[in-house]
Amino acid sequence: MTSAWLLPEHIADVLPSEARRIEELRRTVLDAARVYGYELVMPPLLEHLESLLTGTGHELDLRTFKLVDQLSGRTLGLRADTTPQVARIDAHLLNRDGITRLCYCGPVAHTRPAGLHGSREPLQFGAELYGHAGLEADLEVQDLALDSLRAAGVPGLVLDLADARIVRGLLAGVACDPARLNEVYAALAAKDGTALQALGSGFAAEVRQGLQALTSLYGDGEVLDIAAARLPQRPLITAALADLRRLAAHAAIAHPDVRVGFDLADLSGYAYYSGARFAVYGAGSSDSLVRGGRYDEVGAVFGRNRPAVGFSADLKEVVQRACPDGRRAAVRAPWGEETGLRAAVRALRAGGETVVCVLPGHEHEVQEFDCDREIVQKGGQWVVRPL
Amino acid sequence: MTSAWLLPEHIADVLPSEARRIEELRRTVLDAARVYGYELVMPPLLEHLESLLTGTGHELDLRTFKLVDQLSGRTLGLRADTTPQVARIDAHLLNRDGITRLCYCGPVAHTRPAGLHGSREPLQFGAELYGHAGLEADLEVQDLALDSLRAAGVPGLVLDLADARIVRGLLAGVACDPARLNEVYAALAAKDGTALQALGSGFAAEVRQGLQALTSLYGDGEVLDIAAARLPQRPLITAALADLRRLAAHAAIAHPDVRVGFDLADLSGYAYYSGARFAVYGAGSSDSLVRGGRYDEVGAVFGRNRPAVGFSADLKEVVQRACPDGRRAAVRAPWGEETGLRAAVRALRAGGETVVCVLPGHEHEVQEFDCDREIVQKGGQWVVRPL
Repeated sequence: MTSAWLLPEHIADVLPSEARRIEELRRTVLDAARVYGYELVMPPLLEHLESLLTGTGHELDLRTFKLVDQLSGRTLGLRADTTPQVARIDAHLLNRDGITRLCYCGPVAHTRPAGLHGSREPLQFGAELYGHAGLEADLEVQDLALDSLRAAGVPGLVLDLADARIVRGLLAGVACDPARLNEVYAALAAKDGTALQALGSGFAAEVRQGLQALTSLYGDGEVLDIAAARLPQRPLITAALADLRRLAAHAAIAHPDVRVGFDLADLSGYAYYSGARFAVYGAGSSDSLVRGGRYDEVGAVFGRNRPAVGFSADLKEVVQRACPDGRRAAVRAPWGEETGLRAAVRALRAGGETVVCVLPGHEHEVQEFDCDREIVQKGGQWVVRPL
Repeated sequence: MTSAWLLPEHIADVLPSEARRIEELRRTVLDAARVYGYELVMPPLLEHLESLLTGTGHELDLRTFKLVDQLSGRTLGLRADTTPQVARIDAHLLNRDGITRLCYCGPVAHTRPAGLHGSREPLQFGAELYGHAGLEADLEVQDLALDSLRAAGVPGLVLDLADARIVRGLLAGVACDPARLNEVYAALAAKDGTALQALGSGFAAEVRQGLQALTSLYGDGEVLDIAAARLPQRPLITAALADLRRLAAHAAIAHPDVRVGFDLADLSGYAYYSGARFAVYGAGSSDSLVRGGRYDEVGAVFGRNRPAVGFSADLKEVVQRACPDGRRAAVRAPWGEETGLRAAVRALRAGGETVVCVLPGHEHEVQEFDCDREIVQKGGQWVVRPL
């Protein structure tokens, strides 16, 4: 899949067998979204930089390639994330009062790779549900994410639940400068109790105890019981724990094959999510395949602050975890303009069979397509026989 | 489809109903290529500028967005055409001795639109056959182009044939500076006999007569007979006319519904094509939907000069000419976690039906999906009934 000697670092061609699998995966997940009633949109690769970046934060800015529009002299961005574009479409183009369900699938580009082996050109698939503040929206999006990965054939799915309201609720009202707050976040992410003790020295006792508690609040369902006992009884925290309990209970019934876990100190996408958030992992993978959750403020910069829940995935990552399908069988045909032969080839192709015509002089070449049958003339008829 | 007030000029979002049609078209044409044995590849959006542009000429350079790679400091190009990338894959990555059939489908970006209403983000679909110099390759690619458009539901297909060898053969050996040669090309393209007379004043008599003849050599099959009588008997010209005759005869048998025409003075892509070339039009369209032909030199810059025939199309253009399919029917379901209801929803979705769950409080909203049925509880069972 790599051709680093010629292509830029972390950018690769996708060659035939992999490309076919990605195309099939693309269809599978878009069909999964369609049967849930998610309408497909195709935002452009290029937009005015301010449309792509307004309200998205510094990190996305650094990851976005910039170029100049000759027609206007303005700076364009090559999209690094499709979510803000879809929020713009919901806010401005569709502008519906009620619920809007949208999905998308297309390439995005990053100036820097996400990891050592990451691609700078993920193929981003995602779905968004706008206009419903209730947990039913979270449940539907979680179902769709799990069904998409299951349809893709990813084994051993693990659903990891968190909620941005827990840390937010715990630190609400704490007088603390932003630099120190960032240190608190870093210590929470590292589950570093000692650092949290030092950083929280001036905080109220229940906040200090809550921060300590969070470092161990990860694992299976009993985490929620421990959290209810050890975290302060504040509205945001109570609501978050109730929602997490309901999301997990729903998953246990609707997706009994999926293991559910919690990490209440998880801060991934903390600046972005406003409520419950989830990540889905495949068997044995340390990186999540899908990330999603509630981010009610996403449309605000487009003048329309309304409830939103969604998720996205890089299909180039998902395909690595999906069960490979076998080589696709094909039929070999001699080249010729005889009517009977052409009709036989046409009929097979109309039925979805791949028919490779062997051009004169190329009879002994090996193809990517695995020809297990051939068309031959037998008693004046063109028939298919095994090879 | 436009949102010019926010997006850059000639760049637009594709909204739900159009996007769904484009997605279906994408699947249709990729499946058409698959059943012909064309392997799918996905080259990246971004490459080093020199890889994208080497040997492609000035025009593609002007149409290519440039940006800087932070990782290397080098200039990258955002691809404006996928063909050179696929030639690179054939030459370097696959590097097979025999025939390679490749297809692709993805966005490209242009600094300037092709026309007044053109998009700067075409969705380019194409197929290429490498490694066979015989006309069988041209015939197969022409068949695939016509079958793709027919499968897409484009009515009234017109196949327009030309051959780069005719003008090349006629002007071979003519001593003439490049500026004057460009004027000859311009006069031929304009079918301007008077200008050609003046420009060809120093040329041999048979060249002058040939240039005059070319201005009227367009129309149906008899054009080939007139050309054989009026153009000089030179190997390149004779070979071109014989190939055109065979391509047209093949189309008449294999695609009796397609009208075939010729324009022997057509110079579109003259610098690019090395043999027969074709364009396909839909009913009543003045712009071609597909352009293709033989361009044997395309891989030379990648160190592998081998025969190549191919075509490409902008699916955003094709979809405008394709027969629209109806709104997709869907099933409305109440929201609920009851096992029987969830099972009914799941079964319908598994069968490919779109089931839109009405979230609490949104019972009276209109959806893009046209719900013509609903799931209701009747005698303890969840059943589907018409709306």
